[in-house]
Amino acid sequence: MPRVTWQVDLNADAGESYGAWTMGDDGRLFPSLTSVNIACGFHAGDPLTIQRTLHLAAEHGLGIGAHPGYPDLPGFGRRVLEATPEQVYADTLYQIAAVAGMARAAGLTLRHVKPHGALSTRSWTHAPTAAAIARATREFDPALPLVVLPATLLEREACDLGVPVVLETFPERAYLRDGRLAPRSMPGSSIHDPQEAARRAVMLVTEGRIEALDGGVFECRTDTLCIHGDNPHAVEIARAVRAALEARGVAVAPFPIPGA
Amino acid sequence: MPRVTWQVDLNADAGESYGAWTMGDDGRLFPSLTSVNIACGFHAGDPLTIQRTLHLAAEHGLGIGAHPGYPDLPGFGRRVLEATPEQVYADTLYQIAAVAGMARAAGLTLRHVKPHGALSTRSWTHAPTAAAIARATREFDPALPLVVLPATLLEREACDLGVPVVLETFPERAYLRDGRLAPRSMPGSSIHDPQEAARRAVMLVTEGRIEALDGGVFECRTDTLCIHGDNPHAVEIARAVRAALEARGVAVAPFPIPGA
Amino acid sequence: MPRVTWQVDLNADAGESYGAWTMGDDGRLFPSLTSVNIACGFHAGDPLTIQRTLHLAAEHGLGIGAHPGYPDLPGFGRRVLEATPEQVYADTLYQIAAVAGMARAAGLTLRHVKPHGALSTRSWTHAPTAAAIARATREFDPALPLVVLPATLLEREACDLGVPVVLETFPERAYLRDGRLAPRSMPGSSIHDPQEAARRAVMLVTEGRIEALDGGVFECRTDTLCIHGDNPHAVEIARAVRAALEARGVAVAPFPIPGA
Amino acid sequence: MPRVTWQVDLNADAGESYGAWTMGDDGRLFPSLTSVNIACGFHAGDPLTIQRTLHLAAEHGLGIGAHPGYPDLPGFGRRVLEATPEQVYADTLYQIAAVAGMARAAGLTLRHVKPHGALSTRSWTHAPTAAAIARATREFDPALPLVVLPATLLEREACDLGVPVVLETFPERAYLRDGRLAPRSMPGSSIHDPQEAARRAVMLVTEGRIEALDGGVFECRTDTLCIHGDNPHAVEIARAVRAALEARGVAVAPFPIPGA
Repeated sequence: MPRVTWQVDLNADAGESYGAWTMGDDGRLFPSLTSVNIACGFHAGDPLTIQRTLHLAAEHGLGIGAHPGYPDLPGFGRRVLEATPEQVYADTLYQIAAVAGMARAAGLTLRHVKPHGALSTRSWTHAPTAAAIARATREFDPALPLVVLPATLLEREACDLGVPVVLETFPERAYLRDGRLAPRSMPGSSIHDPQEAARRAVMLVTEGRIEALDGGVFECRTDTLCIHGDNPHAVEIARAVRAALEARGVAVAPFPIPGA
Repeated sequence: MPRVTWQVDLNADAGESYGAWTMGDDGRLFPSLTSVNIACGFHAGDPLTIQRTLHLAAEHGLGIGAHPGYPDLPGFGRRVLEATPEQVYADTLYQIAAVAGMARAAGLTLRHVKPHGALSTRSWTHAPTAAAIARATREFDPALPLVVLPATLLEREACDLGVPVVLETFPERAYLRDGRLAPRSMPGSSIHDPQEAARRAVMLVTEGRIEALDGGVFECRTDTLCIHGDNPHAVEIARAVRAALEARGVAVAPFPIPGA
Repeated sequence: MPRVTWQVDLNADAGESYGAWTMGDDGRLFPSLTSVNIACGFHAGDPLTIQRTLHLAAEHGLGIGAHPGYPDLPGFGRRVLEATPEQVYADTLYQIAAVAGMARAAGLTLRHVKPHGALSTRSWTHAPTAAAIARATREFDPALPLVVLPATLLEREACDLGVPVVLETFPERAYLRDGRLAPRSMPGSSIHDPQEAARRAVMLVTEGRIEALDGGVFECRTDTLCIHGDNPHAVEIARAVRAALEARGVAVAPFPIPGA
Repeated sequence: MPRVTWQVDLNADAGESYGAWTMGDDGRLFPSLTSVNIACGFHAGDPLTIQRTLHLAAEHGLGIGAHPGYPDLPGFGRRVLEATPEQVYADTLYQIAAVAGMARAAGLTLRHVKPHGALSTRSWTHAPTAAAIARATREFDPALPLVVLPATLLEREACDLGVPVVLETFPERAYLRDGRLAPRSMPGSSIHDPQEAARRAVMLVTEGRIEALDGGVFECRTDTLCIHGDNPHAVEIARAVRAALEARGVAVAPFPIPGA
């Protein structure tokens, strides 16, 4: 008799429109998700967009996260900015606070923090940036989890500081044996086929491992699977991933708050 | 035997530096104040400046307020921007939330909201703007007071919505009989002499009225007196006002939260 | 024997993307146009977008104009900002200069200036704003024309200052007898049918007049017809307008520089 | 009989105020200078500030340069931003064009380009950034010189692309033997004494060399000496440097345009 033994969250970035400009298709993507990372105004997401995204997320019952980035609208937060740790700390805290407070005013609760773009990639390998993000998260709320990639400095700094972590993997991206994402310059680093993404999602969740692009396997726990909302096939991939997970008996639901 | 029968708060705008640029002299002004209105990043005040201002305010035991403005750095929030009520609501809520959350992370509590510059002056006469500010304040926290000028639409909208109000007067500005500030184009509209500002402060607090520039008197309650931090004589005026109030037996302290 | 006796320019706003965000569909719209108004970075259009738009315009042989707006990215320049005339002058001059210089570096020549959004509508009725725009245009280059709506203060200030004017009408918008655009709140104020827009374009160009929504006709010269690029049917309307004009024997070409 | 055999330019950054915020003291510094590098709006310098700075520079007969920086107001352009070469090219070209066009409208001519802050330091060692800056300068105007530090990649890329170069040295900063500036972490890397700065200025200009902090001497030509306007002693240093140069018979004047 089948029994649900696995559970996973499906997250995507959201609220990345800005004023008159639209990014992604939140309305079509949200039905497939269980959590969203909401842009906080620094790389995308003006206050009115944040508010609308919060309401849309609430309608779909999604877990709500803050998605802080570098203060870089023209670069969409995708360019490393050599900010000091004090600046990263203050910028991150400000962004978490803004989205958390807007969520509270809408009767919702912020459930996680996940850094965006270049702030995120820099936190994988630059300890002062990683520590600043972890510290801002903890000082805003010690129970608030950070969504982190396994085998990164952000994961380590978060753990060292006692910040709850939610481990994230990417069904659309290939891994190396050591857990790093395969560079986009490597053939096969990105998965475009929804069915292949779905197969990888199921393997990541039910087996805790995935074939590495440089041979062997990468073993890791997956608390949440990330779907890239800016991928033109995001909606199809999210649907395929969710359908495959549910067909395999995986409960797709917002991640439980670690330690709660 | 003299008895303290009067109490008043002394507030000023603060944290209006931005990155490498400095505005005002918070370090010299804060010792004379009891409350500060902290710029929230839209007209002034980057996150690191907000954080430093919060710590400086805490060192001086000041009551902390959010000072939201229009998103207009090059105009310092002094230019009316015909934002929709939905935009004003979302922008105001975002700014309150950001400063409130940074305050909480520093172990402090936000005690009030006071709009800045053109957002403030527009709220005196434009009901949708006033209502949007009052609603954002209430939805963030129904117990959070708005600092308002008497005889303005912001006062009325706040009262209508049940937002606690703290009444503010200006010892450095002349009034008209009907309670409006005398336009800056009128001779005598601004008071530059610290002793005259001090005399007016004492009269406002202890008599609840002030001579009007167009004859007669304007009667009003004063919960807090505002010192303009961008006035070159701000420090001297604040000292003179505080000294005169204390000499007259007025308790100078953060205003009590209305209804608390 | 038929002879070309009429000529008109077809313009649209362009380059209104920003960083990672896309606005409009310049690639599909440009083949139907003869001139473009390029956003200058204040309401839309980062430098890389400007450069790409210049190159695309050059490929299609379009006349190039600067499209300055208020410094208001989150509002897309659609909100009136009560800037001083000195600020409007400097902001407008800066934007013209930036696009003109980028054009020159690409081997192109700036042919006109047309204000955007709320800066434009304010210039219709607020003389100091209109004068500041006209003065900035003239001081950048006395031969550079302003594209203006007939019967507005911008037209008058431009003429008073000796700035060459190019008269613009809208085939998609209804007029009142006095030459003002019918307010969007009036039924029939916007034309959505490409064939009706095309009919109006032909009438405006070949008869120099159009039926007014409040009865009677509005008579005016048309040097250039504006197509709204942010209209979802912009491409279809532009094609229909151009086809109808050409079928009627109107030469569709960049406007001649007045006085040149 | 003494004869003027040496000539040098004295430059400083200028126009680095922004809206209501002031930076430096241009009014007191300009009398000692012969050229200024005017902030272009990306790291500092709104359009009205640019215009006022142009007029002030003209009153003092100073040579005018554009001072482009990274689009980073909160960081004052002092933080490296990993922009692509295409972005650096477009951002630099836009900024040069804006200031050049405003200068022209004021009856002035742009005489040089000098990158600011982190854009400058990155151009010393990152060839794609250096090439993008040099290319933007050349494509705006092939006769327009770049002010460069000797022994940097910016100097090399400019020379390779045929961009005229003006060599700049710092009388307030110590050098290493290989021509690099001594890192600020090294004791003695900054010169605070106006007389010592003046002595070094004279030696740089009249001997073409300076003692290196790591022993030996650094030999180089000096076309222009840079005074840091954000140094609290900038005015005193500039006066002492100019006085010492003139006392030694050095003609202090805007640099001649190379090749002109």
